[in-house]
Amino acid sequence: MTTSQGYQSFRVQRIKQSSTSIIEDNIIEETPIALSYNGISHAVMMATPTDIAYLAKGFSLSEAIIPNLSYLYDLEINHYEEGIEVQMQIATQAFVELKQHKRTMEGRTGCGLCGIENLQQLNRPLKKLAPANPAWLDTLTAVYHHIKNHQPITQATGAAHAAAWVVNGEIIATFEDVGRHNALDKLLGYLLTEQRDTTEGFVFMTSRASYELVRKCTQCNIRLLATISAPTTQAIKLANESGLTLASFCREDGYVVYAQPQSI
Amino acid sequence: MTTSQGYQSFRVQRIKQSSTSIIEDNIIEETPIALSYNGISHAVMMATPTDIAYLAKGFSLSEAIIPNLSYLYDLEINHYEEGIEVQMQIATQAFVELKQHKRTMEGRTGCGLCGIENLQQLNRPLKKLAPANPAWLDTLTAVYHHIKNHQPITQATGAAHAAAWVVNGEIIATFEDVGRHNALDKLLGYLLTEQRDTTEGFVFMTSRASYELVRKCTQCNIRLLATISAPTTQAIKLANESGLTLASFCREDGYVVYAQPQSI
Repeated sequence: MTTSQGYQSFRVQRIKQSSTSIIEDNIIEETPIALSYNGISHAVMMATPTDIAYLAKGFSLSEAIIPNLSYLYDLEINHYEEGIEVQMQIATQAFVELKQHKRTMEGRTGCGLCGIENLQQLNRPLKKLAPANPAWLDTLTAVYHHIKNHQPITQATGAAHAAAWVVNGEIIATFEDVGRHNALDKLLGYLLTEQRDTTEGFVFMTSRASYELVRKCTQCNIRLLATISAPTTQAIKLANESGLTLASFCREDGYVVYAQPQSI
Repeated sequence: MTTSQGYQSFRVQRIKQSSTSIIEDNIIEETPIALSYNGISHAVMMATPTDIAYLAKGFSLSEAIIPNLSYLYDLEINHYEEGIEVQMQIATQAFVELKQHKRTMEGRTGCGLCGIENLQQLNRPLKKLAPANPAWLDTLTAVYHHIKNHQPITQATGAAHAAAWVVNGEIIATFEDVGRHNALDKLLGYLLTEQRDTTEGFVFMTSRASYELVRKCTQCNIRLLATISAPTTQAIKLANESGLTLASFCREDGYVVYAQPQSI
């Protein structure tokens, strides 16, 4: 199987001002991707099948399954008719902790609460972050203007979220996915594979800012999350708890700061 | 606790054209909602805490936990500091099937694949739908123009998805949520509580059309799903399999048909 570009062409029927035409349309790919650790199935997620290794690594790190990539010994990607399977081998210590965690993990839905079965489990310890660099905020408007040029799947389909890494006002890398949490996991997987210092820049996303994005950023020591769309109450609450600076509605002429440490 | 309006006011710092002001901003609520059946925790989802009973009923039906509401004996909503718990009592037969299903359900993430642990489990049987009424398509443009008037949370926050029920071109009911699958579950819970015939109209959503929306609609015998934003490849594939008509990019002057039975 060749590498996916993230979308496929479909022949569809367009009705415009009451006239019908048959057109070719690019549709974003949503593929089941199964993650397994040491031979045990862990999760299946719907994702856009690009940068699959980064996605799997980023997920493993941002969901705290492994503390760093030295705990990941092997990663193999297999393509099947039903979807894609990523088989990972992780250190015994991490696998034992994962198995213990999985015992309490039945029954959950898709909203960034992977592995949470009852309300008490929500109070898991959160890292405390050092404050973001206030100068980063001054670059948000410029990043907003440039990020479009880094979104090929969005340009083709109009349906992807993008997560970008910004250092000194420059977009270093951008990843796209049908799911915003996947786009972020791809970016985090890239940063930590490339041994980037995650405290020297910030994450800019084209989506809303929800709970799971703040949680994943915090776990990977990201100090500023900036988004184009709105935040949620839980995202603000969690950002205030961890010390993450949260700026949303980043647009052409400004932005809104929803959470930031007192020291900024 | 009083009923939520779906959003809360926060004092935030807005930076616009380099000048800073402190403003009050309405933020969409994202609250952990735990669902339990016969005393056993089943799932925690992040949702906007409006129409919670409809959400719980719709989820139970669209995820095929119960075949109809006669299997639901009791529903109780409890508010806690950490979130909201919905305790449901369901018929023994449904609960036994759920327990059997839950044994294979560990480890999954949030993307409409609730309960799927490996790729083989994806091939679950799908209902076959009778064709949609072709005349419904002619009303999509009008619905697009009117739905804004039915979205109070979106008007306040700019951050909600809406799911509307349309009969004879008229919007009968609309529900909003931070998660599109929750908005749909609220609508489905309403329709089936009110004993509406789900074959006499269609669902119109302001979001993208993804896998889980097509799956939930099919499970509840909805024959046409119309969305404002783009579909995904899996949504088109599943719609073709079940016979659901899928129209997306429904805008002011037209729409695109991505899946429909040959007979239309």
